[in-house]
Amino acid sequence: MSEILVVGSLAYDSISTPSGKVDRALGGSANYFSLAASLFSKVRVVGVVGEDYDQNDYELLHSRGVDLSGLSKVPGKTFHWEGSYEGDLNEAKTLKTELNVFEHFNPQLPEHFKDSSFVFLANIAPELQLQVLEQVKSPKFVGMDTMNFWISIKKEKLIDVLKKVDLVLINEGEAKMLTGAANAISAAPLITAMGPQAVVIKRGEYGFAMYSKTEGYFILPAMPIPTVVDPTGAGDTFAGGFFGYLAAQKTVPTIAHLKQACIMGSMMASHTIQDFSVRALSKVTLGDLEKRLAEYKKVITI
Amino acid sequence: MSEILVVGSLAYDSISTPSGKVDRALGGSANYFSLAASLFSKVRVVGVVGEDYDQNDYELLHSRGVDLSGLSKVPGKTFHWEGSYEGDLNEAKTLKTELNVFEHFNPQLPEHFKDSSFVFLANIAPELQLQVLEQVKSPKFVGMDTMNFWISIKKEKLIDVLKKVDLVLINEGEAKMLTGAANAISAAPLITAMGPQAVVIKRGEYGFAMYSKTEGYFILPAMPIPTVVDPTGAGDTFAGGFFGYLAAQKTVPTIAHLKQACIMGSMMASHTIQDFSVRALSKVTLGDLEKRLAEYKKVITI
Repeated sequence: MSEILVVGSLAYDSISTPSGKVDRALGGSANYFSLAASLFSKVRVVGVVGEDYDQNDYELLHSRGVDLSGLSKVPGKTFHWEGSYEGDLNEAKTLKTELNVFEHFNPQLPEHFKDSSFVFLANIAPELQLQVLEQVKSPKFVGMDTMNFWISIKKEKLIDVLKKVDLVLINEGEAKMLTGAANAISAAPLITAMGPQAVVIKRGEYGFAMYSKTEGYFILPAMPIPTVVDPTGAGDTFAGGFFGYLAAQKTVPTIAHLKQACIMGSMMASHTIQDFSVRALSKVTLGDLEKRLAEYKKVITI
Repeated sequence: MSEILVVGSLAYDSISTPSGKVDRALGGSANYFSLAASLFSKVRVVGVVGEDYDQNDYELLHSRGVDLSGLSKVPGKTFHWEGSYEGDLNEAKTLKTELNVFEHFNPQLPEHFKDSSFVFLANIAPELQLQVLEQVKSPKFVGMDTMNFWISIKKEKLIDVLKKVDLVLINEGEAKMLTGAANAISAAPLITAMGPQAVVIKRGEYGFAMYSKTEGYFILPAMPIPTVVDPTGAGDTFAGGFFGYLAAQKTVPTIAHLKQACIMGSMMASHTIQDFSVRALSKVTLGDLEKRLAEYKKVITI
């Protein structure tokens, strides 16, 4: 089996949306990613939590076969994010970011994580992404995400990471910010010119646009979901479904695999947004995904 | 052959975008619509222009076989719109609207227009849309567009028109405004509940979302176009390609026809945005469309 290594945040999120609010609910890129990816593949997590991290939140990943031996618990409190969404829910307004134990995160891979075949560097500081990559022996396929904060203050270092990965998953606003392009279509080839073979631009309610150096664009809409309860974690869920599917193919990914992986990521994310936090995601089965995929194919078939 | 009747504006537009600017270039919904639709079908135009309307601009439609006997030339100046686009070009900033002769537009159908099978009521005052509809004997298929201005000041009258049409083509922001829905997906069934069998929500760079009472959603992305020169008229071009294709099928449209019509509208609009005014659109051939359709199918094929 091909294992996936993910490094990212484990967090408690306080979120309000037009559908309601939650306080200190489970969140963080590594949690969303792992829950999604573990439906298809073995996942290994590298991250840090504080003393307040709930035993049930460990158990959730543990029950999905996720290897948590790279997760350190240190004195202090777990990363906490507070945000709100209004109107069309396309953009979160950050009300508070308490880095807490995440501020001094120093990712160290357990020895048995170093042979991981698939690696996903979720949105953390570019130096830390590099530090993780240096510890992995010979990965088959490496992907990364980032965010506006790192683009504005650590762009050079970020470009160093871009040179070392096979694929970037990035949201549309950040793709434009990174490249200075006016739209996702013109941003995509500028991003692959920085190094990676392919880029997947996440467009929220509009779906995704993938671009690969060899085969150009692959673009599809999102599954139509009339009521979005909470979009938090949709991008990390997409990445988890994407990598989970890829790793399960047990081979070096082809473009055909990447296309299918986009669809899987998209179907998985369409569940996440239907409830707060990881509530909907943690209940999704392969049967649910297949059913949704069949509905989706009807929506996009001419 | 099934004739299409269109009622809408004929205008001169002054437009600036990041790609440059044009002054008093040909525009207006009826022009974009007719140029697109006439590639497939016979088109009849009802509209009004001023004494400044250029003979070459008549000739352009005339050369495409468009019947201009419903076009009246009256004392005064032609409708003039001035706008600018910035950044991602998703929204025009209106700098000036001079209604001129359009202010007292009183659409009267020539006798031989009254048997038109397909009718498109472009974005004009709802009372005028009704006035046109009352003059048509027994149309097979009626579509309409509208805009934020009419939604805010003439919503009731607009709802009267909605009850009498088969299909609405509307942009995403206006669909949300009309229904109070948070997104296009939830807006769509609220619009069909007002009367029409189907709605096509135009999403600009993200493509379109169609919804029909009988078969639900049909959603696809736009053709990827790296450099958008001028998005003006893209929606009216979409409608023209859509109706042109439908009318050419010479039968009452099925959902399968409507889906193909969306694709044709979308392919046609992807040309319009590649140059200012009607420059690119007026040169498009059926061969160009077929070529683009083949490229598009590669982009959306899993």
